Amino acid sequence: MNDFALGDPSLLAAFRRYERALLANDVAELDALFADDSTTVRADGGSALVGHDHIAAFRAGRPPVPDRILQRVHVRELTVDSAVLIAETSRADGGTGVQTQLWKRIGGAWQVTIAHVSTAPPAVETPRSGDPAVWRVPPGDAPLAAGADSGPLQGMRVAVKDLFAVAGQRIGAGNPAWLAGVPIEARHAGAVAALLTAGADIAGIAQTDELAFSLAGTNLHYGTPANPAAPGRITGGSSSGPAAAVAAGQVDIGLGTDTAGSIRVPASYCGLYGLRTTHDSVDRTGLVALAPSFDTVGVLARTSAVLTAAADALLPAADIVPTRELLVAPTLLELAQHDTRLAVEAALRALALRLDLPVRRIELDRDALEDWFIAFRQVQSAEAWRVHGDFVAAHPGEFEPAVEARFRSGADVDEVQEKTARDVLATARARLHELLPPGVVLALPSSSSPALPIDADAAAIDEIRGATLRLTCLASLAELPALSIPTARVGTLPVGLCLAAGPGADRALLALTEPK
Amino acid sequence: MNDFALGDPSLLAAFRRYERALLANDVAELDALFADDSTTVRADGGSALVGHDHIAAFRAGRPPVPDRILQRVHVRELTVDSAVLIAETSRADGGTGVQTQLWKRIGGAWQVTIAHVSTAPPAVETPRSGDPAVWRVPPGDAPLAAGADSGPLQGMRVAVKDLFAVAGQRIGAGNPAWLAGVPIEARHAGAVAALLTAGADIAGIAQTDELAFSLAGTNLHYGTPANPAAPGRITGGSSSGPAAAVAAGQVDIGLGTDTAGSIRVPASYCGLYGLRTTHDSVDRTGLVALAPSFDTVGVLARTSAVLTAAADALLPAADIVPTRELLVAPTLLELAQHDTRLAVEAALRALALRLDLPVRRIELDRDALEDWFIAFRQVQSAEAWRVHGDFVAAHPGEFEPAVEARFRSGADVDEVQEKTARDVLATARARLHELLPPGVVLALPSSSSPALPIDADAAAIDEIRGATLRLTCLASLAELPALSIPTARVGTLPVGLCLAAGPGADRALLALTEPK
Repeated sequence: MNDFALGDPSLLAAFRRYERALLANDVAELDALFADDSTTVRADGGSALVGHDHIAAFRAGRPPVPDRILQRVHVRELTVDSAVLIAETSRADGGTGVQTQLWKRIGGAWQVTIAHVSTAPPAVETPRSGDPAVWRVPPGDAPLAAGADSGPLQGMRVAVKDLFAVAGQRIGAGNPAWLAGVPIEARHAGAVAALLTAGADIAGIAQTDELAFSLAGTNLHYGTPANPAAPGRITGGSSSGPAAAVAAGQVDIGLGTDTAGSIRVPASYCGLYGLRTTHDSVDRTGLVALAPSFDTVGVLARTSAVLTAAADALLPAADIVPTRELLVAPTLLELAQHDTRLAVEAALRALALRLDLPVRRIELDRDALEDWFIAFRQVQSAEAWRVHGDFVAAHPGEFEPAVEARFRSGADVDEVQEKTARDVLATARARLHELLPPGVVLALPSSSSPALPIDADAAAIDEIRGATLRLTCLASLAELPALSIPTARVGTLPVGLCLAAGPGADRALLALTEPK
Repeated sequence: MNDFALGDPSLLAAFRRYERALLANDVAELDALFADDSTTVRADGGSALVGHDHIAAFRAGRPPVPDRILQRVHVRELTVDSAVLIAETSRADGGTGVQTQLWKRIGGAWQVTIAHVSTAPPAVETPRSGDPAVWRVPPGDAPLAAGADSGPLQGMRVAVKDLFAVAGQRIGAGNPAWLAGVPIEARHAGAVAALLTAGADIAGIAQTDELAFSLAGTNLHYGTPANPAAPGRITGGSSSGPAAAVAAGQVDIGLGTDTAGSIRVPASYCGLYGLRTTHDSVDRTGLVALAPSFDTVGVLARTSAVLTAAADALLPAADIVPTRELLVAPTLLELAQHDTRLAVEAALRALALRLDLPVRRIELDRDALEDWFIAFRQVQSAEAWRVHGDFVAAHPGEFEPAVEARFRSGADVDEVQEKTARDVLATARARLHELLPPGVVLALPSSSSPALPIDADAAAIDEIRGATLRLTCLASLAELPALSIPTARVGTLPVGLCLAAGPGADRALLALTEPK
């Protein structure tokens, strides 16, 4: 059943027992899981305890360990009977921890012979002011739109991507020519109104890639926002401004859109939680479209609790089918760079261990995936040209060349090609829906790599865009909800673990982030 | 040459290269010592870096690591080609650190494949006031005796054991009957005067076991001082008051005496640096004697720098022969309790690695050691009876029974027995001097165990006294200097690593504590 290489199943079962005992402060169980030997070591911040009995005495006298959530678990098997397990954890206060354990199989049972535990306090956020690369309408002293006097989002501040209507403001769509030609909006977009009704304040309007047709976050006109989680790197896009504002701690919630990854990619690059909602589940009135078959509303936040609260305000009510199985497809993992793949696997291992979920390996044919990707691009660009072709044609040279080229490629997709591509997508959609009945979740990298440096050349950016799109297009073409969780790390750079499920399973995905 | 079980010599050589490179911030060498693999892990307080290149990039961007001193090194060999090494370190500011490393032999060379580093800030000292179990004359607003206006000990405060004359004060010697019968001293003891001349202030007069004839620190009349480094435990004695005062941070220097371990044992139990000086090297005028053939002046401090400064003020000038070899005798290690032995070995391993000194195993015959110990006890008690017999006989029942019995046992040593015992000691002294030419240092446990609980029964205290005396009597009978360094830990309890050298090598021992 569990045939993803999480590690030796009996070792992982012992590790889960240890984690459960730790959170329950079950001292007897912890003592039993540590080797009963005078050479057993337990080290924390500054010193080491040697000997099982000394460790047991220490444990008996300390208060319970604060609740913590496994974020990444690395397994390094040494021999058939010994392995090192490195687990990275987070606490509710934003602090983090690492535990390194040497496990040995002693008399048939796995036991800890060396443990080293350390923690770090929460990082201090440094709010910055209204950088024009982040904000088209920066936050002022008063909210741009004040939320209801009560509600679950009371006191939370939202950065709205510049594709949504905010009453009294124009929509800029990341392009100055667009901004110059549009009227002031009379009413809030549906998603904006929903957040206001739930009590959140709209703090400001944040930048987007031009007409949302990019995953890079590089805007020729307004500048490239800095990535607060990865200095010197791009934020990803197209929800670049909301991602930068949330990651910098300037606001709590980023309201954005995701057509082909525009929530998931900046969430991945900026170390945020990001939800692409099920297609058509959240009202898109008052939103500038890109490719309506794939366009969705999405949200970004630094914590899963805030993300869940924001998504609650947007999504229709629905019963949650508890997740019973995680799927992983080697051909999807292989689309990521090698170290991104390792990082995502460590995060997936932590998730599966934390929730005690089996991980099943599925086969997704590489050639089929490529066909799906090509078909997706054709339909997306055909739709984008249908929606914006007149405007793009009327403003030659007023777009970033790569974006303009992307739009123009849609003009070349003829009716027959589009029909064929839509047939391919229907097949793909059926296949993915079949793989993802209620209770089943597909895990994959949110992006093929962490964020590139801001000064990366266009070719490098285009290359990772292609690899990332092959991953992100799956949820897009199958109308799936997809949640990016910021638990993987490539070096110091965040990268997302993406969880996709069947249409309507948004809340089931969010439930996977609850402490357990 | 190096035949003490420090661990695989090639592994330890690699570890030393690593430590040297770390302190020199030799990034290229550090990179070379980490396995060049995408699965290599380096974790610190709250997170892990995965992959050699990410670790190298991190290292290139960080400032040099602050100087640190290896305190304890634990080696756990897994296979012939893999081992975990846990090193505990201290920094100049009193902070501490732990690093756990998984080393593997890869292509013949040892490399780190997993490293986890963490640190803790210095512990905060909580000075307490004039507890009568610690102080016979507690510190007041002004010093009891003010030091010279300048000098290397300027600003340092001294607790003087209540065996030394302080001008204007009586000597209490830990016994109320003694205190009642003695005059006020007209002048300072030689050692007190030397510390004052060097600029230190005498803060107060601290308690001692009765007439210094105990290693426990339990004084029936004045109470048992609490051990600041080991809550609920004895401080050891007989320099109990100075040790408690120094360990609690109330003073910088403890001035005491060591006849049979009275500096080394409280240093061991209280986690202090303690020096027993070479017999007759420091002036004993103004000091109540116990057994003049073995009585020495000693000092206690929390740091090696303060200990060295205080010892400098007391000791005659002498050239230092650098230490070239450490000796270890299995029969001495076996006199310690099992976990104390492991703890002392970890501390010795750290010392040898830090100083790059070979450790040579020597044989000391168990039966000969027992003969030496018995002879030492006979001569010590005979001398003590000669010095204090009249007083003890005149005050029956006014001593702790065990102390009184110890004195009275000296009355039973006849002239022939004492002569025979002195012959045995002469042989022992010759053997130890032969083993310890200049440049050679013997390492052994400072005590056979960490401090016992305050409520331990007399039999338990007597048992560890016997085991400890078999260790401490060696330096006493051979007139050797002996330095106890507080780098071993049994559970959370301190225990000392004792370093003994030939007569006059006090400064060579102190030099071993210098950062290197």
